[in-house]
Order: sequence, then structure tokens, then C-alpha cells
Amino acid sequence: MALAILAHSGGPTPVINASLLGVVERARRFPPITALYGAQFGIDGILEERFIDLFAQSESTLAAVSRAPASALGTSRRELTAAEVERLLAIFRARDVRYFFYTGGNGSMRTAWEIAGMARQASYELQVIGIPKTIDNDLAETDHSPGYPSAARFFACAVRDIGADNRALPAQVEFVEVLGRDAGWIVAATAFARREPDDAPHLIYFPENRLPLGQLLEDVDSVYRRLNRCVVAVCEGQLDERGEPFGADSRPGSRGQLAMNLAHRLSILTAQKLNRKTRSEKPGLLGRASLAYPSPVDWNEARLCGRAAVDAAEAGKSGVMVALVRAAVNSYSAATACVPLEQVAFSQKLFPAAWRTAPGAEMSPEFAAYAAPLIGTIEPHAHLFC
Amino acid sequence: MALAILAHSGGPTPVINASLLGVVERARRFPPITALYGAQFGIDGILEERFIDLFAQSESTLAAVSRAPASALGTSRRELTAAEVERLLAIFRARDVRYFFYTGGNGSMRTAWEIAGMARQASYELQVIGIPKTIDNDLAETDHSPGYPSAARFFACAVRDIGADNRALPAQVEFVEVLGRDAGWIVAATAFARREPDDAPHLIYFPENRLPLGQLLEDVDSVYRRLNRCVVAVCEGQLDERGEPFGADSRPGSRGQLAMNLAHRLSILTAQKLNRKTRSEKPGLLGRASLAYPSPVDWNEARLCGRAAVDAAEAGKSGVMVALVRAAVNSYSAATACVPLEQVAFSQKLFPAAWRTAPGAEMSPEFAAYAAPLIGTIEPHAHLFC
Repeated sequence: MALAILAHSGGPTPVINASLLGVVERARRFPPITALYGAQFGIDGILEERFIDLFAQSESTLAAVSRAPASALGTSRRELTAAEVERLLAIFRARDVRYFFYTGGNGSMRTAWEIAGMARQASYELQVIGIPKTIDNDLAETDHSPGYPSAARFFACAVRDIGADNRALPAQVEFVEVLGRDAGWIVAATAFARREPDDAPHLIYFPENRLPLGQLLEDVDSVYRRLNRCVVAVCEGQLDERGEPFGADSRPGSRGQLAMNLAHRLSILTAQKLNRKTRSEKPGLLGRASLAYPSPVDWNEARLCGRAAVDAAEAGKSGVMVALVRAAVNSYSAATACVPLEQVAFSQKLFPAAWRTAPGAEMSPEFAAYAAPLIGTIEPHAHLFC
Repeated sequence: MALAILAHSGGPTPVINASLLGVVERARRFPPITALYGAQFGIDGILEERFIDLFAQSESTLAAVSRAPASALGTSRRELTAAEVERLLAIFRARDVRYFFYTGGNGSMRTAWEIAGMARQASYELQVIGIPKTIDNDLAETDHSPGYPSAARFFACAVRDIGADNRALPAQVEFVEVLGRDAGWIVAATAFARREPDDAPHLIYFPENRLPLGQLLEDVDSVYRRLNRCVVAVCEGQLDERGEPFGADSRPGSRGQLAMNLAHRLSILTAQKLNRKTRSEKPGLLGRASLAYPSPVDWNEARLCGRAAVDAAEAGKSGVMVALVRAAVNSYSAATACVPLEQVAFSQKLFPAAWRTAPGAEMSPEFAAYAAPLIGTIEPHAHLFC
């Protein structure tokens, strides 16, 4: 006898709509939810009371939507003031909203935690359940985040493809900028593009480590002298030894200035200092909006997280986020659990220091074991020359 | 009783190796060619006498190679001096090379034409056959160039995907930089991403037309005010009204300076002048190295061109390039013909002035009819919000 609202927050992922499907199909089998509304453009849609009746959608619409990248509801990066949380709760109260499902990353989980806290303070019965979503994979307390496997696979395939081009037409240094803000999860995954030792990427930098320009140039020079080519995978949030984005045009990021196009800047600097032909590519948003290279498990897990959010509601939980748990030891499978929102709202899970290897080295066995089932096999491209 | 050599030239395409397959399978059935060698890294491999015996490759190797992007032989951008052409002919003579198949764009066809001319002058019997290849689609005398359909489809899909992201998370101006040097064929094809009138791309600029910054800003502002978002498709070779790349870092291009990252520059300028949130993406080489979004016809036509090159040799031709001819009137099919090298070596086929429409307008019916069979259908992504 109550309304449920689902809203998306932050940047979309290739599988955010699979989570939506999971919520809808499971909520249909949970009688206390008499109506499920999707907020148009995230929290903005709640404040403006612009909703989509999700139970009214046909099976075929939901099936099509679930396979589409980018949020089917629309999303928002808005951060709520206390006054806006009050207004949101007033809207919930007026409409008898008793379940709030919020799909997002750590900033969004902080918003969810605030909403849950203010509802409790106001003695308004509201179950708030977070659904994890971020390609950056920097959410704490979950094995990984839905969206990450797809983005990681996209960039690993992109580096393989650009690497094949660089191998066939050498004498060039190629910078490939990958997403991930200031967490190294995606850039680390580009190592899956390698089959032979001299395959791209030849250098991988973790944004958790500051990178002196001198070191970068030395590394590139050394690879180039050996192979007559070089492909560098670099995260959009990489900073130099002063904590600056190498003098690039920048915008505010979560931990200082974020370059607007870091690879471009590194390409220019390398051309100037090493006098080599350089290029840079920035697939950018394509890494979170393309389904060209789908991850084998990501879609299913995103849907699972959507279902688990309604399970959590049925179990009477609130103030929690659904988390993925690695279930098996010898083969890969994932189950879900619930973790308190405050445990994820205030932290960012960076790429573990112990898993970071040297720029030109193989990936650590720990990361290989962690990421391989998420990313799947990446077939190398055939070629004939030696 | 004679040797044939196949070499690749210039930037690879997603289907250059399908042409290779066509040459090998057809040459095996043309007895005068007793051996077919692939030059490693293009013309460099000939001068250094580094060859791959293509008749020695297994069916399965050739099948794998034919489906791989990036040149399986390696390629080169080297331009030959007259002395180097002499050396190349001396090598041909010493090895009894009587057939030379050269896969490339207009610059490469000039090289092929020079080689054919100098062989004739030296009374050395050599058949020189060009095989068309360029994603830029700027080769004259052929309906289109193998490689173009794949790159065009890639960028149309990329704009659709980035457009879906921009629609779901609006309040942003998004520049997508596409390949094509200074020819507008690829940027024009991004219009296939549109299904509804307000779908991305909202603005398409043809590099054949100079673009005053003031006009760009006015166009963007107008779209943004109407839709609260804007996706701009811009060619890497776009120039401003002074014939400059908008003050971007640049490198020498075929018609003046080519920006190293034009979309980045336009994104910065737009943010400054219009005070909007902007981004830029540059899938770059991915557009010629990815097989994520294969064109329905490109691979088959590339293979066809490879076979037709050997047909031309068998017919006694030399100094010609294989061209694609649109065969049917009511349905699409392509045949091949031969055109004299000098007719393609010295010209660049720009996007026709009569087919260029205003930046925010639909594509011209002429271009739609021309490109639709090459690019195929592009399914829009489902979404629920209005």
C-alpha cells in the first residue's frame, strides 16, 4: 500500500538500466509496493515531481531499456542542501513514498544516508536502499561495482585495438586516456590487452601514485628505443609530482584539479621533450556509454543488484547499500549482501598499493585473479610480421 | 614464373587485411604468379627486403588475419625519393618481381604511379596495380573506399552512444572529434545516429567549409538554450575563418596545420566564451582500429578489391587502381573497375558542396542514399524519460 521511487545519480554506466530492470521485476512480486515510480533526471525529478510509472511499462520496453547504455530515467549530479532534503521528504510524505531506491556511487550514497537520517529524525517511516553503480570501481565494501567490468573491458579492448594500429604503423608514441577519475581500477585493466610481452600497453600508470614528468619521459624513451613504438595507458586523474595535472587545462576534481584532456597534454610534452612523433586518443565517455565490448558478467550482476535492493526492502532493511560478494573460491560467482550506507558514503576505494606494479611490468597476480572473471578473455588480433 | 609483391601504405583500416585475403586467394589461382610476398612495413620492407611468403600461410591464419584490424603486414608512411624508386626497381629486377600490388590512399597511388612510370622508362616489365584503402573516403574515381564504411559506422555509433549519455545527464556541451583529415565524409555520417529530430549530433561541421568561432558559439548557444544540452560532431581537420585550427596545438596536415586535438580546443573555447560545462571526446585511432561496429558491406568489398587487383593483373593491366562501382539502381551492390593511377594520384575527393547541409540540419537526401547501404541501420538506444 505504498509508493516506491527509483532514482539514478551521477554518470551513467553501460548497465545501469539492467539494475532498473532488476528493481522493477522484483518489486512487481512484492505486494506492499503498489506503485514504483522512476524519477526523471535523478533527484531533480523528485524535487520537480516528474515521475515515470515503471509498473506501467511493457515487458518489451523494459527489455529494450535494460540493454541500453546511459540512464533510461535520466540522471543528475546535483548535491542536496538540507533544505532540499526536507522538501524531498515532504514530497515523499505527501505521496506516501515508503521505499527509496537510489542507484549511484559514493557521493550518491552520502545523499541516501542523509535522506535516511533525516527521515528517521522526523519519525517518517522510509526504507532507503542504495544500489551500487560506478565504472570507477571506487565504492568501498563491495567486491566491485556494476559498470566497472564493462568499462574495464571497453578500455582493455580499446588499448588492444590502438596497440595493433601502433604495432602496424610504428615510430610513434601513443597515449590512451582512460576513465576512472583518480582511481586506477580501469587503467590497471588495460593490461588485459597484452598477450605477448611486447604488446600494448607498454606503460601503465596508477593515478594513486604521483608521476614526475621526468620519470614518464624516461620510461617512454626506454620503451621507444627498444621497440620503435610505445603505447601508454594513463588515467584521466593522473597527477604529477606537485599534485598538478601536468599543466593541462583542468576542472575541479575530487582530489584536486582534474585535467580536461590529460593524454593530449602528455602527448604534447613528450613530443617537445623527446622529439618523437606522438598522438593521443581519448575514447572518454564512450567507455561508459558504449556496449561495443560487453563484459560477460556485468549486465547480470547489475540486474542482480536491482533485485537484491527489493529483497533488502522486503527484509525490512534501510540505510544500506547492496554489495557484491565473491561467492565461490575456485570458480567465479557473485552473491549480494547489504552494507550500512555510512560505510560507503565517506570513503573511496583506491587501487590497492600492494597490487600496483611498475609501469612496464605485468599486472599483479592478485589483480589478475580479481579482474579476469569480470573482464573476460580478450582475443589478440592476428598479424603476420615479426 | 614470376614473383608478386603486396605492400600496404599509410594508416591501416579495419578491413585492409580483407583486401590482403582477396589478393592471396585469387593469386593462388593465377599460375604466372609463382610466389606472392608481403612486404613487412610497406615500402620500407621492400627496400630492406623483409618479406613474408603469403602462399605459405595456412587457410586458418589467413582467415584470422582477414578479420583483424590494423595491417597484418605492417605499413609505412614513407614517401620515396627518385633514388629510392631506382633501388626498389633494382630489387624487383633481382628477384624477378613482375606484379606489384599496392594498397593505399591517394599519396600511395602517386608512389605507385611513379614506380610504374620509372619501370616503363627502364623497359622493365612490371604490372603495378593499386588497391584502394582509406577511411577518409577521399580517393577520386571510386564510388567509395574500403575502410570508409567501417570508420563511418564506428563514428555514427560513437555519437549515438555519447549522445545517449549527454541526453541522460544533460547541461553539458559535448564535442566529438572524428577522423577524416580535411574531408567531411566521416563527420557527415554521424548524422546516421539521429532517429528523432533532437537526437545527437545536434551540430555537424564540414571541414570543407571554414568555420568562424563566432558562428560555432552562436550555433551551440542556440541548441543549448533549446535542449539544455548539445553534441557537436567535428572533423579533426576543421579550420577557422583564417584557415587555422582555432589556436590548437597542431602538426602539418595536407592542407595547412592539422590540430592535434581540435575537440579539446573547441571545448575549452566554448567553456570560456559561453560559460557552459563542456567536454570533448576523441575516439581517434579507435575509429580505424576497432571492429566493434562493423559495416555490413565493408569487409566483403575490401576482399573483392583484393581479388579484382589480381583479375586486373591477369587482364594484363598496369598503372591502374581498382575502383568500386555502384552496380544496381534500386538495390545496393558493388562491382569493380580499373581507373588510371594518374586520375587518382593527384586529387582528393572532398565532400560535395551540394551535399553539405547547415550544421543543425538533416543530411541531404543524396548523401543519405549514398551512405545508407555502406553504414547500415543504427538502432537508437531505448529510454523512458521525455
